Amino acid sequence: MNKVRIGIAGYGNLGRGVELAVKQNDDMELVGVFTRRDPSAVKTITGAAVYSMNDAEKMADKIDVMIICGGSATDLPKQTPELAKKFNVIDSFDTHARIPEHFANVDKAAKESGHLAFISLGWDPGLFSLNRLYAESILPCGKSYTFWGKGVSQGHTDAIRRVEGVKRGIQYTIPVEEAMDAVRSGSQPELTTRQKHLRECWVVPEEGADLAKIEETIKNMKNYFDEYDTTVNFISEEEFDAVHNKMPHGGFVMRSGMTGEGESTHQMIEYSLKLESNPEFTASVLICYARALARLKAEGATGCKTAFDIAPAYLSPLSGDELRAKML
Amino acid sequence: MNKVRIGIAGYGNLGRGVELAVKQNDDMELVGVFTRRDPSAVKTITGAAVYSMNDAEKMADKIDVMIICGGSATDLPKQTPELAKKFNVIDSFDTHARIPEHFANVDKAAKESGHLAFISLGWDPGLFSLNRLYAESILPCGKSYTFWGKGVSQGHTDAIRRVEGVKRGIQYTIPVEEAMDAVRSGSQPELTTRQKHLRECWVVPEEGADLAKIEETIKNMKNYFDEYDTTVNFISEEEFDAVHNKMPHGGFVMRSGMTGEGESTHQMIEYSLKLESNPEFTASVLICYARALARLKAEGATGCKTAFDIAPAYLSPLSGDELRAKML
Repeated sequence: MNKVRIGIAGYGNLGRGVELAVKQNDDMELVGVFTRRDPSAVKTITGAAVYSMNDAEKMADKIDVMIICGGSATDLPKQTPELAKKFNVIDSFDTHARIPEHFANVDKAAKESGHLAFISLGWDPGLFSLNRLYAESILPCGKSYTFWGKGVSQGHTDAIRRVEGVKRGIQYTIPVEEAMDAVRSGSQPELTTRQKHLRECWVVPEEGADLAKIEETIKNMKNYFDEYDTTVNFISEEEFDAVHNKMPHGGFVMRSGMTGEGESTHQMIEYSLKLESNPEFTASVLICYARALARLKAEGATGCKTAFDIAPAYLSPLSGDELRAKML
Repeated sequence: MNKVRIGIAGYGNLGRGVELAVKQNDDMELVGVFTRRDPSAVKTITGAAVYSMNDAEKMADKIDVMIICGGSATDLPKQTPELAKKFNVIDSFDTHARIPEHFANVDKAAKESGHLAFISLGWDPGLFSLNRLYAESILPCGKSYTFWGKGVSQGHTDAIRRVEGVKRGIQYTIPVEEAMDAVRSGSQPELTTRQKHLRECWVVPEEGADLAKIEETIKNMKNYFDEYDTTVNFISEEEFDAVHNKMPHGGFVMRSGMTGEGESTHQMIEYSLKLESNPEFTASVLICYARALARLKAEGATGCKTAFDIAPAYLSPLSGDELRAKML
């Protein structure tokens, strides 16, 4: 089989992760990175070629799958339907509430142009969604829980950086152990927002800043912190750079279900991720779905699909015979 | 959509589990249980009709999916290909080494007769296999681990019951916490059989039996206990009946992988099950795949498939729109 020829649209943390993930898969090759910046100003990690996004269309016949690495707020709602007119595409659109609308837009563009598009891949949405679906289908009587962390929330980190007097800042979302243990016990608790997660902030203040005011402003910030127990820690810039320079994340999907006579038997399913790098892991998911996309496209599929629509065997480089012999 | 009409072939613990699982799914109905015993001697939990296995063929047009609940050692290798000539079938064949041969036999029978067959469903093989496939496809550089327990191993339980002087007995397989923590740390340890699992035996001795000899015989039993650290506990029949009357099981699938520059970033995926009843949970998996089978059959699929070949969306009673809106 020919290698799957990958393009990367957008070169931030996720794009860099995809660049590195391609190298871990012998059946993939990276054609190039497409950027809205001046291509000569972008230096890639592996020396991959860099092109202007404006020139992407001219290279359509050289790329099997374009992996779109923009942000969900403003980039992907425009970019994915647009690029789906010229390429088979994959994105990691993660604004859960807007997925149906995004799906419809991408599906229309892809069907009209005869392309195949996968959206909302990564770990949540993505692997966590898959685990919710499998677990709820297997245990229809029960309750599902998702916990996130310990990990960096980009939205909350951006929010504290906007507070007056904050020079540097980072926010970690932390799942509450007691809440997770209550779920694992089978008691199927109703948990409030505050009971499920803590928010931990690390701040380098500007010189002479009012620390008490920074702390109060953060803790009372509507929609971000007011419904949570939040801690604010002030540290030096040296400590910040030494300790808080990574993008870890992860989380837990749990299903507590009941089976048997009188639904009295407790059955517990738990899936968890502990990721040292959120963007590198998300990139690894995207690349393995690029393999599935190339295969499904070869079978004639077009339109938009999500992780729910793709049989697991398409993700593996192994054949059906090999999978049954080694992995079943 | 019409309800999926289920038949159960074989009425042991698993068959009873399937009977109860059907009741938890509104889109399923149980037509009856088929047994090799005298049907009048079999009493079902829910009052489901009982028929002789010899009469199954006559009812072929009344059953959409026959769930075969026999044992993997001798029943399923014969029953599944045989019944696949007359029915769409699902089994939980779990002799990993013989899966390719079983697949070929069932595939041939199902294709020739235009039926659809799913084999080796349950949690291992089944959900654990799926997690191995997803995790290894996403993180190609890494190491996978499977731990089982805490749970009752039927094979080991049968083995200790055959020891002279043993009146009642049960064996629990227990994963070693330290080994699991070593895996979670990212050190990717090489683990021996002894380092991964303990074996815990609870025995009610015959009156006047030689306890030291029972313990020694169990601990040195080839292929069952000699490669493990095994404990043998002697208890009264009253305690045995009160405490050891369930069939719990479970386990862990872990993938410790590396991504990024120089493959220096550790990424950890973990899936676990904690089941109060192994047969009831396995039955729940079989029933949710019966839904997928009915749908794939309606699309024209025939032959043999495993969990790897079935897109997740087929398992859920929800539509694609509902899944994307609620679960992605």
